[in-house]
Amino acid sequence: MKQEIIGDIAHLAHVEMLTPKLEESTHFFTDIMGMSVSDTNGDSVYLRAYDDYEHHTLKLTASKQPGMRHFAWRAKSEQALQRRVAAIKKTNFAIGWNEGDLGHGPSFQYTSPDGHLTEIYFETQKYKSGINDTSALKNTASKFPARGINVRRIDHLNLFAKDVRAFRNFQLENLGGMLTETIVDNLTDQNPKAVWFAVNSKSYDLAVTEDHTGMTGRFHHVTYATNSREEVLIAADICLENGIYIETGPHKHTIQQTFFLYVYEPGGNRVEIANTTARLIVDPDYETVVWTQEERKKGQAWGLPTVPAFHTRGTPMAE
Amino acid sequence: MKQEIIGDIAHLAHVEMLTPKLEESTHFFTDIMGMSVSDTNGDSVYLRAYDDYEHHTLKLTASKQPGMRHFAWRAKSEQALQRRVAAIKKTNFAIGWNEGDLGHGPSFQYTSPDGHLTEIYFETQKYKSGINDTSALKNTASKFPARGINVRRIDHLNLFAKDVRAFRNFQLENLGGMLTETIVDNLTDQNPKAVWFAVNSKSYDLAVTEDHTGMTGRFHHVTYATNSREEVLIAADICLENGIYIETGPHKHTIQQTFFLYVYEPGGNRVEIANTTARLIVDPDYETVVWTQEERKKGQAWGLPTVPAFHTRGTPMAE
Amino acid sequence: MKQEIIGDIAHLAHVEMLTPKLEESTHFFTDIMGMSVSDTNGDSVYLRAYDDYEHHTLKLTASKQPGMRHFAWRAKSEQALQRRVAAIKKTNFAIGWNEGDLGHGPSFQYTSPDGHLTEIYFETQKYKSGINDTSALKNTASKFPARGINVRRIDHLNLFAKDVRAFRNFQLENLGGMLTETIVDNLTDQNPKAVWFAVNSKSYDLAVTEDHTGMTGRFHHVTYATNSREEVLIAADICLENGIYIETGPHKHTIQQTFFLYVYEPGGNRVEIANTTARLIVDPDYETVVWTQEERKKGQAWGLPTVPAFHTRGTPMAE
Amino acid sequence: MKQEIIGDIAHLAHVEMLTPKLEESTHFFTDIMGMSVSDTNGDSVYLRAYDDYEHHTLKLTASKQPGMRHFAWRAKSEQALQRRVAAIKKTNFAIGWNEGDLGHGPSFQYTSPDGHLTEIYFETQKYKSGINDTSALKNTASKFPARGINVRRIDHLNLFAKDVRAFRNFQLENLGGMLTETIVDNLTDQNPKAVWFAVNSKSYDLAVTEDHTGMTGRFHHVTYATNSREEVLIAADICLENGIYIETGPHKHTIQQTFFLYVYEPGGNRVEIANTTARLIVDPDYETVVWTQEERKKGQAWGLPTVPAFHTRGTPMAE
Repeated sequence: MKQEIIGDIAHLAHVEMLTPKLEESTHFFTDIMGMSVSDTNGDSVYLRAYDDYEHHTLKLTASKQPGMRHFAWRAKSEQALQRRVAAIKKTNFAIGWNEGDLGHGPSFQYTSPDGHLTEIYFETQKYKSGINDTSALKNTASKFPARGINVRRIDHLNLFAKDVRAFRNFQLENLGGMLTETIVDNLTDQNPKAVWFAVNSKSYDLAVTEDHTGMTGRFHHVTYATNSREEVLIAADICLENGIYIETGPHKHTIQQTFFLYVYEPGGNRVEIANTTARLIVDPDYETVVWTQEERKKGQAWGLPTVPAFHTRGTPMAE
Repeated sequence: MKQEIIGDIAHLAHVEMLTPKLEESTHFFTDIMGMSVSDTNGDSVYLRAYDDYEHHTLKLTASKQPGMRHFAWRAKSEQALQRRVAAIKKTNFAIGWNEGDLGHGPSFQYTSPDGHLTEIYFETQKYKSGINDTSALKNTASKFPARGINVRRIDHLNLFAKDVRAFRNFQLENLGGMLTETIVDNLTDQNPKAVWFAVNSKSYDLAVTEDHTGMTGRFHHVTYATNSREEVLIAADICLENGIYIETGPHKHTIQQTFFLYVYEPGGNRVEIANTTARLIVDPDYETVVWTQEERKKGQAWGLPTVPAFHTRGTPMAE
Repeated sequence: MKQEIIGDIAHLAHVEMLTPKLEESTHFFTDIMGMSVSDTNGDSVYLRAYDDYEHHTLKLTASKQPGMRHFAWRAKSEQALQRRVAAIKKTNFAIGWNEGDLGHGPSFQYTSPDGHLTEIYFETQKYKSGINDTSALKNTASKFPARGINVRRIDHLNLFAKDVRAFRNFQLENLGGMLTETIVDNLTDQNPKAVWFAVNSKSYDLAVTEDHTGMTGRFHHVTYATNSREEVLIAADICLENGIYIETGPHKHTIQQTFFLYVYEPGGNRVEIANTTARLIVDPDYETVVWTQEERKKGQAWGLPTVPAFHTRGTPMAE
Repeated sequence: MKQEIIGDIAHLAHVEMLTPKLEESTHFFTDIMGMSVSDTNGDSVYLRAYDDYEHHTLKLTASKQPGMRHFAWRAKSEQALQRRVAAIKKTNFAIGWNEGDLGHGPSFQYTSPDGHLTEIYFETQKYKSGINDTSALKNTASKFPARGINVRRIDHLNLFAKDVRAFRNFQLENLGGMLTETIVDNLTDQNPKAVWFAVNSKSYDLAVTEDHTGMTGRFHHVTYATNSREEVLIAADICLENGIYIETGPHKHTIQQTFFLYVYEPGGNRVEIANTTARLIVDPDYETVVWTQEERKKGQAWGLPTVPAFHTRGTPMAE
């Protein structure tokens, strides 16, 4: 019998984004994206989308350079957390336990093979809406904002890494989940240029692309989901009207089929607004879809050439 | 530490629907719904939506009365299947192994506490598209049909049961998953009138409503998902234009927030076309949302009164 | 040769709505509907949707009772205005010229046969956006608001009248345009129960329904258009979340096919949020579509029963 | 008093498209676009979209080269037709009356200043649907096809011309309507590079772009409208899945704001599938929006660079 897939991670929990323009970035995520501030602490602002169920999915922290300080996974249970920690401890990447942060309990820290600081935790503080933001539908975490892009929830994270193969192996062996899609130079080359990992029924929660700059631990983008593709189109208008730089889109990715819009938030980090229609991967032994560089030259699904910056521009930026 | 949730079921696999009008029902599912026939065998026609990855998600079988002959779950692995079978065998509802059907391997049969014949299996035949139906995007199971409603994939199943509490307990204890929402008479009454179970990140895969007719094993509806709410609206026009009876909708459910359209296929069974926008439940310790009958009197999300037939009409129909 | 249709009216220009709750009504139209205040004057607030090109399309005026004080047409030219005035002067309904209002020049006043105060004018003040509301696209009257429902433009007006036939004849003979659809008791009865007039390529700009209350000059609703049906669905959520009473919808009208949502603004007046997809009537000799009461019993396009209040509730309300 | 705008043209009526692959082109317009054949005659196939009210809006005619043989306007009335003919007769471009074609009565022929054969007529044959294609909604010209892209109606025509200024002046003086938008080299240069004409409430019915090839009478594209932007996105998938070449899009035009998708039909002609949301121009003295080449360099609304072929590729093609 084939070994069972490790299913201990529930979902991508949050991203701590660094910004040299904390105020402008906060304005972008609240007024343009439609998210809400759930807390502030020192140089950090904690935010969530209206149907994010935890205290926050985004922590903005003031910094000289844009980038990502850390990101976090939530485990499926206390037991699942212990199993993942035990596995990570056997690698060279374990850091150790800390007492948590606003909104969640103790977390175990480690780095990715490329140096991205990562946490895993189970104990969390579910968001409790108040008089002003309780939804009329009690199966919604908080009221629909009716402001800006109205993103619903965090969707996925995309990182750069020098050695994608090492990242892939570390992730699948220690965190689990599935490799749903991958790019290779050619079909005999097993050295991936990019990988997409899923830990639940979404087709991916984390993507990693090869970094050619010689830098490490870089951030590519974080994605928030809208309820429809129509709202991604409206998002493009909202960004246009408000001076938010649109890098590319709206268009449909060939890989993963996501309907995307990429913009730069005022601090310089790339943010994606996306909708994946009704696509889910529920097949428990899904066979990884392998793309060659040759196939990628066709551009995005409907023919849009991939913008060059997409392959090189991460935060912090190369000089 | 709290006990871990059983996570052995991957998804709702297929439904065998009985129809007194096999030809008309097949026409409905192909030309109106936009599904495809993958096989026929005796009095049965096997169908799938364009992104259903298995051989079929719907088996139409000729019969004097409409209704459901059986439905099936796919387990996450061979090991997961064995664990579930071991659990079911300890109940009064186990039937035993059979050799499978077109499209999947050996399955273990049991009945729900209300008598619904159910199967669980792991071995499956992934759909292999041919010259005429291979998608340009190799992460899609087959070509977008551009015909009728263009449903993408099976979404969930809804059943009637006399004793909803018994069904709920059997399901959670033996199949696992989460109870995401429930209706009770009042908040002190723990006898549910309806229950919604999720086995993956969708907010439900199976729903069960109280049957007041004295009948058992009845079918309420099966649901196929479209990529957008716009396509549910278009579906309503397509049904209107083609003489398909619309029972209610399009509208948004209060419970589960599904944007729905209910129609009767020519054989008499209720079919739902739905879209759930970007809603997913990824919280691993999601607290069941409890609705009282009082709350339900408000009707659907935007005020549409629930049609009376929704509470009583199942297949086979009461006389 | 058939007589030419009078084509002197450009469009419905604005509605002066009476409200006993001026502040709450203003909040509704700005924060919920996404419109903007362009001016205030005494007890009146002037508003417009983001792509309304004139100074205002809605004038809210404080009053003890809800209802409509007047509405206005804009003529196609100064000459067209003079032709319409000459025609109206020959009827019993002419009132006379006044000096205009904020936002437009001299207007000629008259009443409908049911007593609705109406104006017609040509000289207008086009809206000039400022630093904060200039659109990035200079073919848009002002910036997309990214607030609430984001209605784009005024669409049509709906009135009650005791004698619909008299209204119809007065309108077609003196104002011109086309009768695109009508309801009669039966096909031999030429006494219409409701009429829909178009003065441009939209399928209607004014609708009039029979009033059974014995009252005169009543208002049924004013409609603002969204860019998509998806935004009508989102509007329903926004109203639900903000305690705005939803009377009926979203659904599709059989007559005129409008995708509609009816709500009551805080002052008690009915407001429609609607989208008509790509439907236009460009046929210059369009044959009026005649509906019988029998046909109307089928309800709205997809089967929704018409709510009783729709036939009786106007503002001011019957006691 | 300012002179009144000539308002004698009702709408763009039809386009006769030349194709070297009549069968494949017919397949494209029926199976991919969702249009229907209303007649055939010799080497010509007559087609219409489901809510086109006339006998046809597209006539496909076999030819060695792709291109356009003629296009037609429908006048608002017999009188309006006579007025336009009288005006055209005073120019150098009049040809004369002919007896009409399948689907419409006598038409007066002329050429544009660039040599495009054009007709104007009033008498027409309204489409009468039959048993198989009558819509459930009698205000729809025929049944919603539920096939392919489901385009609703013809929207506009785009031509190349060597001397855009001459075309503009001829059109406004003899056919009437409004110049809603235009491109000039710079704001002091009155020699337009492109012009957009509206004859009804749509923001344009005909567009003309400068032809640098030295050829005359060339066709740029014809556009059919879908009911929503979502359906333009779906159209892109349908083209992708069926090997139809996508030139650019989906994206939003800066000029006119149209949400567009450009493809090449099998005969080589460019076809646009588009939706304009709720945008209409009802202002009777709309001030032409003037764009400079400098502004155009920004690309389309959300930043997509305009594809070079868009400026040069027409049919017949330059060698």
